[in-house]
Amino acid sequence: MKVVVGGHIDHAEGHSDGYKSKAELGGGDAESFRDIATHWSMTLPLRVKDEEPDKCLHSLAQQRKWCAEKREEKEAVGDDGRPNALGIPPLCCHESRSFPRGRSSVTGRDRISTGRSGQFHNSTMRPEFRSYTAAWLSARNKDCNGVGSMESRAFAVEGESSSASAPPPAPPYFDLKAHMSAIAEAVNRELDVLVPVRYPEKIHEAMRYSLLSPGKRVLPLMCISACELVGGSQDVALPAACGLEMIHAMSLIHDDLPCMDNDDLRRGKPTNHKVFGEDMAVLAGDALLTLAFECMTKTPSSVPAGRVVRSIAILGKSLGAQGVVAGQIMDIASEGDPDVSLETLEYIHVHKTGALVEFAAACGAILGGGSEEEIASLSEYGRCLGLLHQVVDDILDVTKSSQQLGKTAGKDVLAKKATYPKLLGLKESQDFAQELARRAKSFLSSFDPQKAAPLYSLADYIANRQS
Amino acid sequence: MKVVVGGHIDHAEGHSDGYKSKAELGGGDAESFRDIATHWSMTLPLRVKDEEPDKCLHSLAQQRKWCAEKREEKEAVGDDGRPNALGIPPLCCHESRSFPRGRSSVTGRDRISTGRSGQFHNSTMRPEFRSYTAAWLSARNKDCNGVGSMESRAFAVEGESSSASAPPPAPPYFDLKAHMSAIAEAVNRELDVLVPVRYPEKIHEAMRYSLLSPGKRVLPLMCISACELVGGSQDVALPAACGLEMIHAMSLIHDDLPCMDNDDLRRGKPTNHKVFGEDMAVLAGDALLTLAFECMTKTPSSVPAGRVVRSIAILGKSLGAQGVVAGQIMDIASEGDPDVSLETLEYIHVHKTGALVEFAAACGAILGGGSEEEIASLSEYGRCLGLLHQVVDDILDVTKSSQQLGKTAGKDVLAKKATYPKLLGLKESQDFAQELARRAKSFLSSFDPQKAAPLYSLADYIANRQS
Repeated sequence: MKVVVGGHIDHAEGHSDGYKSKAELGGGDAESFRDIATHWSMTLPLRVKDEEPDKCLHSLAQQRKWCAEKREEKEAVGDDGRPNALGIPPLCCHESRSFPRGRSSVTGRDRISTGRSGQFHNSTMRPEFRSYTAAWLSARNKDCNGVGSMESRAFAVEGESSSASAPPPAPPYFDLKAHMSAIAEAVNRELDVLVPVRYPEKIHEAMRYSLLSPGKRVLPLMCISACELVGGSQDVALPAACGLEMIHAMSLIHDDLPCMDNDDLRRGKPTNHKVFGEDMAVLAGDALLTLAFECMTKTPSSVPAGRVVRSIAILGKSLGAQGVVAGQIMDIASEGDPDVSLETLEYIHVHKTGALVEFAAACGAILGGGSEEEIASLSEYGRCLGLLHQVVDDILDVTKSSQQLGKTAGKDVLAKKATYPKLLGLKESQDFAQELARRAKSFLSSFDPQKAAPLYSLADYIANRQS
Repeated sequence: MKVVVGGHIDHAEGHSDGYKSKAELGGGDAESFRDIATHWSMTLPLRVKDEEPDKCLHSLAQQRKWCAEKREEKEAVGDDGRPNALGIPPLCCHESRSFPRGRSSVTGRDRISTGRSGQFHNSTMRPEFRSYTAAWLSARNKDCNGVGSMESRAFAVEGESSSASAPPPAPPYFDLKAHMSAIAEAVNRELDVLVPVRYPEKIHEAMRYSLLSPGKRVLPLMCISACELVGGSQDVALPAACGLEMIHAMSLIHDDLPCMDNDDLRRGKPTNHKVFGEDMAVLAGDALLTLAFECMTKTPSSVPAGRVVRSIAILGKSLGAQGVVAGQIMDIASEGDPDVSLETLEYIHVHKTGALVEFAAACGAILGGGSEEEIASLSEYGRCLGLLHQVVDDILDVTKSSQQLGKTAGKDVLAKKATYPKLLGLKESQDFAQELARRAKSFLSSFDPQKAAPLYSLADYIANRQS
C-alpha cells in the first residue's frame, strides 16, 4: 500500500436532509498538493520530505511569502468563493485579515448553521480537514472515480484488494496485557520522579492527584512502541511518553471544571477541583501542560536536538487552537444542537482526542529516528486509532449497560449528543469501526510484523474493547 | 564584577516580631555549590558551564543518581533536621517520597505558618530560593563576613566600591521610547500573523482579544535586546518574543477568571471571560500557552536546534510549578494573611512575574549565541528587573493617586496585601529599588555600553516610572 504523502483538501458539505459527502479536488500537480498539505494540514510537519529536521521549522518569513503568493493566485482567479486552481478556498489566505473587536456574534456554532446554506462554506471553515467518514461512505458508494478524493480512492482500493485477494498474514501472537503493564509501570515510576512533592506542596499534590491516578497509559504505550518500531529504545521515548500523560491529565482537569463539563467524579474519584479547589485545578492544569513541554526536552542527549524541536512543534500544533482546543470548542458549540453533521462530529473526535493519539505515534517515530515514510505511516496509524477509539466509545454507550461499562451508559443519548450510531446507524458505525481498525493496521504493513506486533494488537484491542 | 556562577542556598527564617534575615551557609567547596545550584536553582540550566547545549538537558537517570547520592550523604549525617556538610536540608532529597492521597491539610499556607517555629523549616521548603532582600539587608548591616552568604558579600562589595570609587561612566543617551515603539510594532505585526482569525473563529477571536490589546511589549523588548547585545539579530528572537507575549496574555486571562482574581476589567476593557465566557477563556489561555511553545520552534533554521531546546527547557521550568505557578500559588495562599514574611513576598514577586522577565533576557542571550557568562549575566539582569518591577509597583500603590496611576491606588492596602512598603518601610523600599536597578545594570558592565544602551535605559525606565 502506498502512503499518501502529498495530502489534499476535501471539500465536504453538509445538507439539512442528512449527511452527504461531496469530495472534490481542484486541479494541481503533486507538488501543489504538498504545498497545501505543508501549510494547512494538521499533520503538516510530518509531510515535509526534507531529511533535515531544522528545515521543517517553517520560518514566519516563509509562511508569509507563501500566503502572499497564494493570495496573489486567489486574486488572479477572483473572489467568488470558488476554489482556485489549487483547490484552496480563498478565505484561507486571509491569514491576517482585520479582527472585529468586541463580542462577535459569529460563534463557531453560528457558522456551522449558516454553513449549510453556502456551497463552500464548510470547506472555507476547515480547509485542512480530511473526513475519513466521508471518504469511506464515498468509497462504499463506488463514488470514487473522477471527482472522488484520493482518500476515497485509498479506501476503495484497499477495500477491493482486501476482499478480492487473500487477507494479509496475521501478525504473530502478542501478549499486549503484559506489555501494557510493563510500560505503565515504567511510566508511573518516571512520573513519580518528575512531579515530586516539593515546595509549594499543594500544587504538586494537585498535579500528582490526577497524573498518578490509575490509567492504562495507552498514549505512552503508543509513543514508546512507535519509537521501538523504527529502531529507537524505550528510554528515548520515555520523557515524551510522560509528557503525553501530563497533557492527558491536564485536559481532564480543565475539562471537568465547573465552567466546562462541571464533573464531580472522574474514574470514581472526586475531580481535581472538588479536592483542591477551582483555582488550584486551573493552575495544576497549566503547570502540567508546561511541564509536558519541558519533558520533551529531557530526551536523552543521544537524540539529535532537531528531532526534539520537530516533536515540540507538532505537539504545539496538535494541542492548540487547530488541534485539541479546536475539538473542545466545537464540542461546546455543538452541545444540544440536533443538527450536528457527521463531518462536524468527526471533526470533534479527531481533534479533541484524536490529535493527541496521532501525535503520540508520530512523536515516537520522530524521536526514534524513523524515515519520513515511517513517520507518515505511524502518524496515519495514530489518526485512525484516535477516531476509532471515539467511534467505539459512541457504540458502547448505546449497546452496553452501565454495569458493563463501569460508567453511566446511554448518557450521550440523554444529553442529546451527536454520536456515530445516531448519525450513521449502529450497523454502519460498527462496520466503520472495523474499517478504521483495518485501515490503521494497513499503515503497519511496511514494517516487520514481529516488531509491529504491539501496535497491531493495540488496534485490535481498541476496536474490540467491551468497556 | 564577577558573576557568581556557583550559586548557594540561603537559609532565611521569618520571625513573628518582624523580618530578620539569618543567612547561613554550610561548609563545602565551590564544586559542591555548583552541584547544588545545578540541581536546585531555578536558573540552573544557565549555570551549567558545558558549551554543548544538549548536555544541559539533565537526563532523569542523572537526576536520580544525584538525588540518591545526596540521600546517602544525608543519611550519613543523620536525619536530625540540620543541614549536612553540603548545606542541603535533608527534605530536599526526598524527591520521590510517597504521596499522601486525598485532600491534604498541608497547604502551602499552613507550611508558612508552621515554618516560623522550626529553625530550618522555611529553607527546606524552598531550597533554591536566593533572597535578594535578605542579602541586601545583611550587607547593609555589614553582616557579610564569616557566616554571610556569597550574595550578601556581592551586595556589600558592590555597595562599597560604588560609594568609595568614582561611579561607572554613564551609558550613552538612548531613545528608549522610539525603540520601544519600533519593537512593539514589529511584535504586533507578527502576533497578528501568528493568530489569524480562522476556523474555529471564536477561540481565535478570544485569543486575539487579549493578545493584541495594547501593551508596552516589555518582555519582547528585553528578549530582542538581549539577543542583539550578544550579536544575534532581531528575527532570531522575534518568534520567542511573540511567545513571551502569548504567555503574558495567557497568564492574565487565567488570573482574571472568577475562580482566581475574579476581575471584570483589564486595562479598561472587559476581561476575556466577560466577553467570551469562562469556558472560552480557559481554553484561550491553554491555546496561547501551547502556541507559545510552538512559537519557540519557529526560530529561524540558522539557529542551532540545541539552543532552541535549551530555551524551551528553561521556559518550561520558569512557567511551571517551580516558577510562575509557584508564585501564583503562594500569592493565593498568602491572601489576607497578616504575617506574610518579606522572604515570602519576594518569593511571590520573583516567581509570579520575575521568572518570565528573567527568562526573556536569558532566552534572547541563548538564541543569540551568547557565551555562558553572557547568558548568566543577562539572566541575573532579568531577575533583578523582575523584582524591581514589583517593588516599584508596591511603592506606586501607596505614593500615587488613582488618577496618576490610571488604576485604583491603595488597593494593596485595602486588600491587606503584603507589600514592600508595608514590610520594609517606604524609605527602605525606595532604597532597595534603587539598589536593584544599580545591581541589574552592574550585570551589563562587561558588555559594550553602546550596544547595551537599550537594557541600561530599560532598567532606569522601570526604576523611575511614575505610573
